[in-house]
Amino acid sequence: MPGRIERALQIAGQCGAGSVLLAHPSSVMWASGFQAEIETGPSPFAASPLALLRDDGTVVLVVSEDEAARADQLDCDVISYPGFTLEELDPVGGARRALRKAVGDERVATELGALPAAFAQDIDVVDASAGLAQARAVKDADELQRIRAAVRLCDIGQAAARSLATPGLTELELWTGIRGAMEQVAGRVSILADLVSGPRTAEVGGAPGTRRLREGDLILCDLVPRLEGYWGDSCATFSLGEPRSSSRDAHMRALDALARAVDGVGPGVRVSDLDANVRLGLNYPHHTGHGLGTSYHEEPRVVPSGDTVLEPGMVIALEPGLYSGDEGIRVEQVVIVTDNGCDVISGHDLAL
Amino acid sequence: MPGRIERALQIAGQCGAGSVLLAHPSSVMWASGFQAEIETGPSPFAASPLALLRDDGTVVLVVSEDEAARADQLDCDVISYPGFTLEELDPVGGARRALRKAVGDERVATELGALPAAFAQDIDVVDASAGLAQARAVKDADELQRIRAAVRLCDIGQAAARSLATPGLTELELWTGIRGAMEQVAGRVSILADLVSGPRTAEVGGAPGTRRLREGDLILCDLVPRLEGYWGDSCATFSLGEPRSSSRDAHMRALDALARAVDGVGPGVRVSDLDANVRLGLNYPHHTGHGLGTSYHEEPRVVPSGDTVLEPGMVIALEPGLYSGDEGIRVEQVVIVTDNGCDVISGHDLAL
Repeated sequence: MPGRIERALQIAGQCGAGSVLLAHPSSVMWASGFQAEIETGPSPFAASPLALLRDDGTVVLVVSEDEAARADQLDCDVISYPGFTLEELDPVGGARRALRKAVGDERVATELGALPAAFAQDIDVVDASAGLAQARAVKDADELQRIRAAVRLCDIGQAAARSLATPGLTELELWTGIRGAMEQVAGRVSILADLVSGPRTAEVGGAPGTRRLREGDLILCDLVPRLEGYWGDSCATFSLGEPRSSSRDAHMRALDALARAVDGVGPGVRVSDLDANVRLGLNYPHHTGHGLGTSYHEEPRVVPSGDTVLEPGMVIALEPGLYSGDEGIRVEQVVIVTDNGCDVISGHDLAL
Repeated sequence: MPGRIERALQIAGQCGAGSVLLAHPSSVMWASGFQAEIETGPSPFAASPLALLRDDGTVVLVVSEDEAARADQLDCDVISYPGFTLEELDPVGGARRALRKAVGDERVATELGALPAAFAQDIDVVDASAGLAQARAVKDADELQRIRAAVRLCDIGQAAARSLATPGLTELELWTGIRGAMEQVAGRVSILADLVSGPRTAEVGGAPGTRRLREGDLILCDLVPRLEGYWGDSCATFSLGEPRSSSRDAHMRALDALARAVDGVGPGVRVSDLDANVRLGLNYPHHTGHGLGTSYHEEPRVVPSGDTVLEPGMVIALEPGLYSGDEGIRVEQVVIVTDNGCDVISGHDLAL
């Protein structure tokens, strides 16, 4: 299979464009390796980074001067505009002029849902969002390495959750310990997470709150960190002390469903069939699984209506669950589709 | 002074538009009170929220179904489109259709640097970004309350930094404690921060890293959390144990500059004059101060070239500093411009 830059350019060709302009932070990361800072929202000092893939396979990054040093370390050309400054701030104007110069009069295939309207005004654009999203489903070798690293970071967080959970702690105190354990290893990272305990587990997910953990509680911990531009994902549900027998039964059924999911993944499998097989007898209100890469939810989405057929190199987070009126259980592992099945790359403890 | 919705509509009128379409998350928060989730980047399940201010002063929020319950609690009309789903994901298409319906054929004044190009394609738009940014500089009473709360959260973080800093801890371990203290009070919040120690303080800022704190270190801690949609900001620099006499001198000069800044703030003051007066004899490579609200850096920017004239109700984070070859010091307080000067709303300890 051709590498990702080549795949993106093929999509541009199908749209009558010679090059590709990526505007979504996850797409820019995918094609260039440039990781946008996301944790505090849009920057006042920079437009969201842009990546232009030229027809000769070279990549041009359009970033602020503050980001240029980081961009220069990548295998890309870099065009920068003024960022943090003592003068008047105009990152949108700066990025717009830099982009206009880089693109010229050529038609570019782009992501119109992410590209700011100001930038589309003076270049010739055609939308290729759907094709570009599909092109990301199969990962290149360097991407798989990064996803493995992000999933190992999840393992560290899951181990911390188990070792730190103690009756009397609040969910937020436990969260601080989990995040701390991950950041001691990785530095500051962006983390999406569900951390709920006791009856809150029935709500499928949610942010950690002020509820105090109690003996006998279930704790549902779903950790989704971004490490060097790629997201990991993992979930476990465990009991603080002795679980109820109904919890044991439900947990066993969730593990069975996860095993069916892992066993069912392989090249040629249609995701709707996989979904139906895993969902059988259970009743969770969410997908059975989803792709993972420079975004935390992408193709292949394992949903009842999905018609994607699995291919080697796809990455899937599989996460069946059971939710009753008073408690919920979810277990999740990440797998890479191989030539004859899949590799489980999650290493965390799934025991109740 | 008219309230913020009225001010925004006046700007639309100046652009020949009858209504305002806000697309930047900070603007949407400003006008509607709807706080976008930002900490993990753009959502795969929703477009960034949009707020349409109609000429009768009513506000329409365009959000995903997952966000609608939160939007319904605000004094707004809500139009929603499918979000998290087992079907095919198309938040951009959903938001685009919802927006088209809400706007109709009327011309809207908008933020073309934030509005996705896909949304601009089938409505009549005119850019009003600069005017809308200026309109945010003077805060309404409810905004000042929220900023005060966010600054109190900074105080909690600063107190934690001082009480937890101990030789042998890494910057990241200290960071976990600071963030933890803030989140125990506020729940999960987005936080921009500089946390650097020892020689790293000379770098002006930076993320906490693996450096271990040592007796005699300076610690520079700049905390910028978002609480319920409004940002706080505060900086202190303190010594772990006995400081060098050169550090004492530099710290005294920084405090003097901050006092000059606070004394110099009042209605009618031009920010370039304020900047020059505070910067006198010092040599910091950044602004003297900046506005604060639904973004963490906005008007009035206190910079050498700024021509904004201060008005009551403006909020400014004042942050002069001194950086030598081997250490840096910065001190920061947030003030509200009053009828005859300003109120300092930061309550944290500034001692060395």
